[in-house]
Amino acid sequence: MTQWVYTFGDGKAEGRADMKNLLGGKGANLAEMSSLGVPVPAGFTITTEVCTYYYANGETYPADLKDQVAAGVAQLEKIMGAGFGDRKNPLLVSVRSGARASMPGMMDTVLNLGLNDETVQGLIEQSGDPRFAYDSYRRFIQMYGDVVLGVEHHHFEELLQDLKDDRGVDLDTHLNADDWKELVGRFKAKVHEELGRPFPEDPQEQLWGAIGAVFGSWMNQRAITYRRLHDIPAEWGTAVNVQAMVFGNMGDDCATGVCFTRDPSTGENVFYGEYLVNAQGEDVVAGIRTPQHLTIHGKQIHGSDLPAMEEVMPALFKDLCDVRDRLEAHYKDMQDMEFTIQRGKLWMLQTRTGKRTSKASLKIAVDMAREGLISEAEAVDRIDPAQLDQLLHPMLDPDAEKDVLAKGLPASPGAAAGRVVFSADDAEEWVKRGEKVILVRIETSPEDIGGMHCSEGILTTRGGMTSHAAVVARGMGRPCVAGAGEIRVDYKAKTFVARGRTIKEGDTVTLDGSTGEVMAGAVPTIQPELTGDFGILMGWVDGIRRLRVRANAETPLDAQTARKFGAEGIGLCRTEHMFFDPARIIHMRQMILADDEAGRRKALDTLLPYQRQDFVDLFSIMQGLPVTVRLLDPPLHEFLPSSDEEIADVAKAADVDEGTIRAAIVRLHESNPMLGWRGCRLGVSFPEIYEMQARAIFEAAVEVAQKSGETVVPEVMIPLVGTKKELDLMKAVVDKAAEEVFAAKGKRLDYVVGTMIELPRAALRAGDIAETAHFFSFGTNDLTQTTLGMSRDDAGPFLHYYREKGIYEKDPFASLDQDGVGELVEIAAARGRKTRPDIKLGICGEHGGDPSSIAFCEALKLDYVSCSPYRVPVARLAAAQAVLGKHRDTTA
Amino acid sequence: MTQWVYTFGDGKAEGRADMKNLLGGKGANLAEMSSLGVPVPAGFTITTEVCTYYYANGETYPADLKDQVAAGVAQLEKIMGAGFGDRKNPLLVSVRSGARASMPGMMDTVLNLGLNDETVQGLIEQSGDPRFAYDSYRRFIQMYGDVVLGVEHHHFEELLQDLKDDRGVDLDTHLNADDWKELVGRFKAKVHEELGRPFPEDPQEQLWGAIGAVFGSWMNQRAITYRRLHDIPAEWGTAVNVQAMVFGNMGDDCATGVCFTRDPSTGENVFYGEYLVNAQGEDVVAGIRTPQHLTIHGKQIHGSDLPAMEEVMPALFKDLCDVRDRLEAHYKDMQDMEFTIQRGKLWMLQTRTGKRTSKASLKIAVDMAREGLISEAEAVDRIDPAQLDQLLHPMLDPDAEKDVLAKGLPASPGAAAGRVVFSADDAEEWVKRGEKVILVRIETSPEDIGGMHCSEGILTTRGGMTSHAAVVARGMGRPCVAGAGEIRVDYKAKTFVARGRTIKEGDTVTLDGSTGEVMAGAVPTIQPELTGDFGILMGWVDGIRRLRVRANAETPLDAQTARKFGAEGIGLCRTEHMFFDPARIIHMRQMILADDEAGRRKALDTLLPYQRQDFVDLFSIMQGLPVTVRLLDPPLHEFLPSSDEEIADVAKAADVDEGTIRAAIVRLHESNPMLGWRGCRLGVSFPEIYEMQARAIFEAAVEVAQKSGETVVPEVMIPLVGTKKELDLMKAVVDKAAEEVFAAKGKRLDYVVGTMIELPRAALRAGDIAETAHFFSFGTNDLTQTTLGMSRDDAGPFLHYYREKGIYEKDPFASLDQDGVGELVEIAAARGRKTRPDIKLGICGEHGGDPSSIAFCEALKLDYVSCSPYRVPVARLAAAQAVLGKHRDTTA
Repeated sequence: MTQWVYTFGDGKAEGRADMKNLLGGKGANLAEMSSLGVPVPAGFTITTEVCTYYYANGETYPADLKDQVAAGVAQLEKIMGAGFGDRKNPLLVSVRSGARASMPGMMDTVLNLGLNDETVQGLIEQSGDPRFAYDSYRRFIQMYGDVVLGVEHHHFEELLQDLKDDRGVDLDTHLNADDWKELVGRFKAKVHEELGRPFPEDPQEQLWGAIGAVFGSWMNQRAITYRRLHDIPAEWGTAVNVQAMVFGNMGDDCATGVCFTRDPSTGENVFYGEYLVNAQGEDVVAGIRTPQHLTIHGKQIHGSDLPAMEEVMPALFKDLCDVRDRLEAHYKDMQDMEFTIQRGKLWMLQTRTGKRTSKASLKIAVDMAREGLISEAEAVDRIDPAQLDQLLHPMLDPDAEKDVLAKGLPASPGAAAGRVVFSADDAEEWVKRGEKVILVRIETSPEDIGGMHCSEGILTTRGGMTSHAAVVARGMGRPCVAGAGEIRVDYKAKTFVARGRTIKEGDTVTLDGSTGEVMAGAVPTIQPELTGDFGILMGWVDGIRRLRVRANAETPLDAQTARKFGAEGIGLCRTEHMFFDPARIIHMRQMILADDEAGRRKALDTLLPYQRQDFVDLFSIMQGLPVTVRLLDPPLHEFLPSSDEEIADVAKAADVDEGTIRAAIVRLHESNPMLGWRGCRLGVSFPEIYEMQARAIFEAAVEVAQKSGETVVPEVMIPLVGTKKELDLMKAVVDKAAEEVFAAKGKRLDYVVGTMIELPRAALRAGDIAETAHFFSFGTNDLTQTTLGMSRDDAGPFLHYYREKGIYEKDPFASLDQDGVGELVEIAAARGRKTRPDIKLGICGEHGGDPSSIAFCEALKLDYVSCSPYRVPVARLAAAQAVLGKHRDTTA
Repeated sequence: MTQWVYTFGDGKAEGRADMKNLLGGKGANLAEMSSLGVPVPAGFTITTEVCTYYYANGETYPADLKDQVAAGVAQLEKIMGAGFGDRKNPLLVSVRSGARASMPGMMDTVLNLGLNDETVQGLIEQSGDPRFAYDSYRRFIQMYGDVVLGVEHHHFEELLQDLKDDRGVDLDTHLNADDWKELVGRFKAKVHEELGRPFPEDPQEQLWGAIGAVFGSWMNQRAITYRRLHDIPAEWGTAVNVQAMVFGNMGDDCATGVCFTRDPSTGENVFYGEYLVNAQGEDVVAGIRTPQHLTIHGKQIHGSDLPAMEEVMPALFKDLCDVRDRLEAHYKDMQDMEFTIQRGKLWMLQTRTGKRTSKASLKIAVDMAREGLISEAEAVDRIDPAQLDQLLHPMLDPDAEKDVLAKGLPASPGAAAGRVVFSADDAEEWVKRGEKVILVRIETSPEDIGGMHCSEGILTTRGGMTSHAAVVARGMGRPCVAGAGEIRVDYKAKTFVARGRTIKEGDTVTLDGSTGEVMAGAVPTIQPELTGDFGILMGWVDGIRRLRVRANAETPLDAQTARKFGAEGIGLCRTEHMFFDPARIIHMRQMILADDEAGRRKALDTLLPYQRQDFVDLFSIMQGLPVTVRLLDPPLHEFLPSSDEEIADVAKAADVDEGTIRAAIVRLHESNPMLGWRGCRLGVSFPEIYEMQARAIFEAAVEVAQKSGETVVPEVMIPLVGTKKELDLMKAVVDKAAEEVFAAKGKRLDYVVGTMIELPRAALRAGDIAETAHFFSFGTNDLTQTTLGMSRDDAGPFLHYYREKGIYEKDPFASLDQDGVGELVEIAAARGRKTRPDIKLGICGEHGGDPSSIAFCEALKLDYVSCSPYRVPVARLAAAQAVLGKHRDTTA
C-alpha cells in the first residue's frame, strides 16, 4: 500500500528533510524539525505523488487517501488534545501547499479551517476572547470563500467596508466582537448568494475542499508562469500540509515573526529578523503594521525606535536563538524561519534554506567553510552560478526607485544607463561627443559591432537569449535586454513607444540586463566589488575542477578580460569580427566584388597586415596559452552594404559602379544563410582567403615567439566541416602557408589543425574526420540549430508556445538539449577518440557558459569549455560543481 | 609482388572481362576476346592500380613496373615476330587509355609508336610502301608531339599546309612519299625548335613518354569535367593499353570500321555498322571520307549508293558476322566493336557494351529475354532507370537543328517549346489567350504554382536540382531547366540575355529538361511512345520488387497520373499547395492576419469545405489505396503577399488596412525560414489549423467510404516533429477531430497517425517517437538540409566547387548521402522498430525517385518509397534492381 500521508509533531515524524521530492520543502522541513525536537505544531503532509496521481487520473484521488487522511487527523487530534469539529475544544488547522521548490505566493493557503457556527463557540471558550474568535472565523470564511469556493475577494472587502461605514469607523481594530460576528453572517450570506448554496459548515467538507484547492492551484496560470520562469517541471507536483493552528494574535503574550540565521542581504553572521506582538503571520508580510526588529543590533543598524524582541521577550528570544543555532548547525546553511508565539510558547512554523543576495551567498559560503561548518567543496557547491554571474557586473542600486517602461529578456547581465540612440553609427558619433548611450535596435547585425561596443547597453525588440545582440553583448560584457516585444521602434522618427509612453532619441533610459527591465531615467547602479571572498572561493573552485575553461575572444580587450577572469586560453577567436572595422571592410568588400582569384588575392594582401596584427596582439596577451583561431565563417553577403546610401559610399570607396555591388548583393543573397555558403565552404571555394588567414596566424606566432620567447601554439580551426575531405583540403592550405612562413622566417613552431563539430553529419563522421583533425570544438550553437532544425534567430515566437506546453523545458539554445544534440556530441566524442585517442575535445558557443551543459561536458570528460569572458568565473565554478557530482539546480 | 602488367594475344590472356576495375573496359575486353580466340593484335595492359599509385606518390611509378613492362614488350615481340626498335622488322604499338568507365575522347592516345629514322626503313621493307611508311611516321610525330611533348597542334597543321602550298596541291592524297619524308624532317625540326631538344628517337623513351602522357591525361581539365558530369570518381584511375599496331591503310585489301551487334538507335536485331577501305580508324570517326555501310540492308535503309562490305569483302564480312555472333552470345548484350582488316585479315581492336537510345535499350532487353539470351530479371537489371525516365517524356527530335542559347541544370526531363513569359500571372493570361508559354524566372516560389502548371516548361536562372522550380516541375511532369546562371533576367524590361543575345517576352524558345539546354526557336519534339515492350518490362519489374512505390501527389491530376504510372498509394500529399488557389488564399491570409483564435477559426471554417473536397477527390481517385496526408508545413509568411500592389489587393479583399498586412509581413519575416516557424510548430502554436485539416480528412474519408464503399485508410502525417511531446499533442488534436466526425456521421473508419522524420533529433529520438507514431516517413529533403547544414536553395554556388573537388561525388539532394543522412535513417529505422516492430517505414522527398537511394531503402527493408508521379515507373524499376542486388551505376 502506498503511503500517501506522513505525520509529524510531538518530537517525532515519519518524514525527513531529504524527502523533499515526496513531501515538498515545507513538509520535509516540518518533519525534520519535529524529529529534532524543535517545537512544531503537529500535522501531516499529503505527498506530491498524490498531486501527480490527481492530474494523471482526471483530478481524482487514490482510493485509500481518505482513510490515510482520517488517520492523520486522528493522530493530530491526539497530540493536540482537541477534536476536529469538536464544539468544546475544536482543533483548527491550516492547509498549505508545499512544492519541492519554493514558489512563494504562487499557490493557495487556508488558515483557521475547522471553524463553523458551533466550533467558534469552543474557540471563544478556549481563548476567552470572542472578538479574536469571530475575527478568526471571518478571516477563515474570507480566505476559504476566495481560495476554495472562488467567490471573488472584492465581495468580502466591500462587505467589510460597508460594515465599517455602518459603524462609522475607519480601522479594523475599532470593530468589536459583535461587529465581526455580524460580518460573519454577511459573508456567509454573500457566499450563498454567489454560489447558490450555503458556506460549508462540516469541517470534513472544509478540509477536502481546501486539499482540492491546493492541488488545483498547482495548475493555475500564476503557478504555470512561475514554473516556466524558474525551470520547474510540472511533473514535480505539490504536497499539501495540514497542520494544527497556533495563534500569534491571542494577546500581548503572543507574537509572530520571520527570521534568518544570518543577514540575507550582506551575509554577515548576525541573527536577523522581524516580529509583531499580537499578530498573525500575514500581518508581518502584509505590511499593515510596521514590524519590529528581533535584535537590539538590528534595531540600531536600521535606526528603528520600536523595541526589539530581545528587549520585550528576552526568554523567548533566547529560545529562538537556540532554535537558530540548532537549525543552522543541523542544516549547515543559512535558514529562513517563521515562528509564532502563542501565549508565551514558541512554535516554529517553517524553516528553509534562506534566499540571499549574491554577495551574501558568497560570504556565507566562504564564512561557513572557514568556521568549519561545511567543507570548502561544500562551499563551492553551494554558490549558484547565476548569482556569481551577477557579482561580476554592475547592479542597480536595490534602494533606488525604478520607473519601468517595458520588460524584455534578461539577455546579458548588468545594469547601465545612457541616452537612447537608434543606430550603431549614431552610437559611435554620440560617444565621440562624450555621451554615454544605450543602443536601441529592432535587432542587431554584425555591422553594428562598433556601435554596440561603444554603447553602455543594448536593447532590442526582437530576438531571443541567443540572438546576435544577446550573444555579442554577453561576449563584450555589455548589459543587454533583448526581444522586448512590447516596445515599438520607429527608426524614421527616432523614437520608441512602450506602454503608451514615447521615448525620443537622447532621452535617458536604464537597462537591467539581469532582469530584462527597461527604465526611464538614470537609475543609480552599484559597481561590482570583487572582495577577498571571491578570490578565496575561486581558489577552491580551481582546486576541484578538471575541465579547462577558455574564453571566446577576438579583441585585445576581450582577451585581457578573459585573462582577468581566469581563462586558460582562447577557445574561439572568430576572425570575421575583425573585418568589420571601417578601415578593413572596404578591402573585404573589394575581395568579395573581385571577378577572379587575382582580384581576391590583391584585396587579401591588403588585409593581411591587419589580420597579422590582430594575432600579434592576441598572442602577446595570451602569453603562451592556447589560442584557437576559427577561420572565416559567415556568408560573404554579411559584409556587403544594404542601404542605398551605403551602396553609394562603397561604390565610391571601392571604385566600382553601384550596379556591380547590387548584382553581388543579388547573387549572394541566400534564403537560409545559416545553411548557406559559409564556413569552410568559403575556404573550399576560395582557398586564398584561408591561406591569407593562416599566413597571418603563423607570421604573428613567429613574431611573438621571437619577441617574447613565449611558445605560442596556434590551434587553427576550420568551421562547418561536414566531410573529412573538406578538412583535408583546408588543412593542406594551412600546412602550406605554415611551411612557407617557417621557411621565410627561418623558425618553426608547433601548431595544430582541427575542426568545429557543428553539423550532425560531422558528428556522425567524426571517426573519419579525426584522422585529420587534432582537435574537435563542438559548436553547439549551430549543432543545436541543425539537429533541432531550429533557427535561433527565428525560434522566439514559437519557443514561447513550446515552453508553455512543456515541449522543451529549457531554451535549447541556452542549455544543451542533452537527449538530442547531446547524443551527437557523445557519438562524435566516442568516434573521434576511437580514431585518435588523444584528440582534444572542447565546447564553444553559448552552452560553454551554462552550468547544466558544463556538467554534461564533465560527464563526457571533454577537455575544456569555452565561453564569453564574463562567463569564465561562472564556468569555472560550474566545472568544479560538476566534479562534485552535482549540477546546482537553480530552483533547488 | 603486385602484378602491374597483364598480357593478351595469340588466343590467350592474363586478364578477363570481369577485371574492368583493374584493367579498364578496353583492356579487360581485349583480354576476354583474346581468350575467346577472336583475332586481337597482341598487347598488354598496365593496370589502373598504377594510375592510383602514380597520383598517390608524386607522379612516380612502382619500382618494379619497368621490368614488368619490359617483359610485356618481350612477349609482344615474340607473338608478333617483330622487334621493338628493330630496324628490319620493327614492332609498332599503339598506347591508349582505358578507364573502368568509357570516357570517349577525354584522354590521350598515341599510334604508330616505335617509329624513328631507322625503323621507318623496316616499315618500308615490310609494307613495300614508302608513302604509307612516311605518312605513318609523320602521323606519329604529329600525335606524339602534340599529346606527349605538348607542342601545339596548329604548328603541325601549319607545316603541312606550307608543304602543300610549296607543292601546289590541295589534298593530302596528292602528296607522295618524298613529300611525307620532307614533312617528317620539318616536323622534327619544329619540335626541336619548340622544346630546345630533339624529338626522341629511342622507342623505349617514346613508350614511357606515351605511358606518362596517358596517366597524366587522367587529370586534364576535360577528363575532370567529364567525370564530374558522369559521376565517375577520380580514384578509379585509368589503365594503359599497349598493343601491336595493325593497319587498315596499307592498300585496297585493308579496311577499318565500327559496328554494333544490333541497331543502337531502334534496338532492332540487325547487324549495323560502317567501314572504309584503305583507311585508319580515325578516318571513319573524323568524317573526312563518307563511311560505307556494312550490310546491304543498312545501305538500302539509309539510301546509300556506296557498296556495302557484304558486297565488297563477302568472306571477311562473314568472318565479322561470326565475331558478332560469338561476342553477343558471349557477352549477352549488344556490342559496339572496332575492327581493322590488314591485308585480308580481320583484327578486332575493341568490343564493349554498345551505347543505345532509351528506346533501343528497352527493346534490346525485352527481345533478348524473349530470345532466351538473358533472363527476365537480367532484362530488368539492364535498363538504365535514367533512360526509362526519358521514355516517359517528350524528347527533342534528334535530327533537328538546335540553336543553343544557354545551358542550365537538367532539372526535370522532357522537351518543350513555347513563348517566353516572365511571371506566373502572365503565363496564366497568355495561356488563356491560347498561347503556349515557357515561364522564365530567376527563381520560383509557391505562389507561382498556377503559372508553372499552365506553362509548357520552366526555366530558372538560380537554384539547383532540388530547387522549388525543379521539384515542382518534376512533380507536374513539366520540363525544367534550372539554375541557368549564364542567363540574366531583366523583369522590368521583360527580357533575358544569354551569351550576348537578348530574348524578349513573346519570343519562342525550346527547353530540353533532360540535357539542360535552352534553344532559340521551336525545336521539333517527339512524343513518348509507351510501346508494348514498356508494359512487358514493367510486368517483370513488379514481379521482382519488394518495396512498394507511392507517389507524391496533391491534385486530382497528380493522383490520376500517379495511378497511370502504377503508384500504389500516395506517400505525400502536401496540403499547403491546396491553399494557394486564388479562391482560398484570401481565407488563408485572413486566418494569418487574425488577432486571436476566434478569428483564425472563422477563417478556417471557410477553408474547411474546400479542403474536404480536395480529400474527397483524392480518396475517390485512389480507390482505397493508402493516402498519407501531411498537415500544413510551410511558414505562414509564404502565404502573405509581397509586392505593394498585392498588398493593396489583399487589404481590400480581406478588409484590413495595409498596415496590418505590412506589420504581419515584418512580424513573420524569418532569417532562416527552413529552420523557422513551420511544420508542427504551427500546429503546436495554433492547434485549430490542424484540427480543421483533420476534420476535412475524416469528413472526406467517411463521405467517400459511404458513397463508393471503398475502404479508405487515411494516414495523417505530422511534419517537422523533433520530440515525442509534439507528436503527442498533435495526435491528440487529430484523434479528437476523428472522434467528433465519426460521432457526427455515425460511421467509424480506421486511420493512422505518424510523422515525418526530417530532423536529426527526430531520427535520434525515434525510439520515443515510435511510441506514438504508427508510421515514419523519412523526409530526406529536409533531413539532408539539416544533417549537412546545407540549404538546397542556396547550395548551388558552392556545390559546384564541391563536386569539382570531389567532396560530394553526387548532389546530396538528388542522391541520398548514405554515410551521413543514411546513418540517421538507419538509426531511426532501428530505434523505431525496436519500440514498434510493425511500424511502417517509407521515404518521401526527392530521393524516393533516385535509384541509388532506392537501393539504400531496400537494404534497410523500408516498406515503401514515394516520389513524383512521373518518377513512379523509374522507382518501380529501381526497386526491382535493388532486389536483384545491384544498383545499376549509370556510368557502368
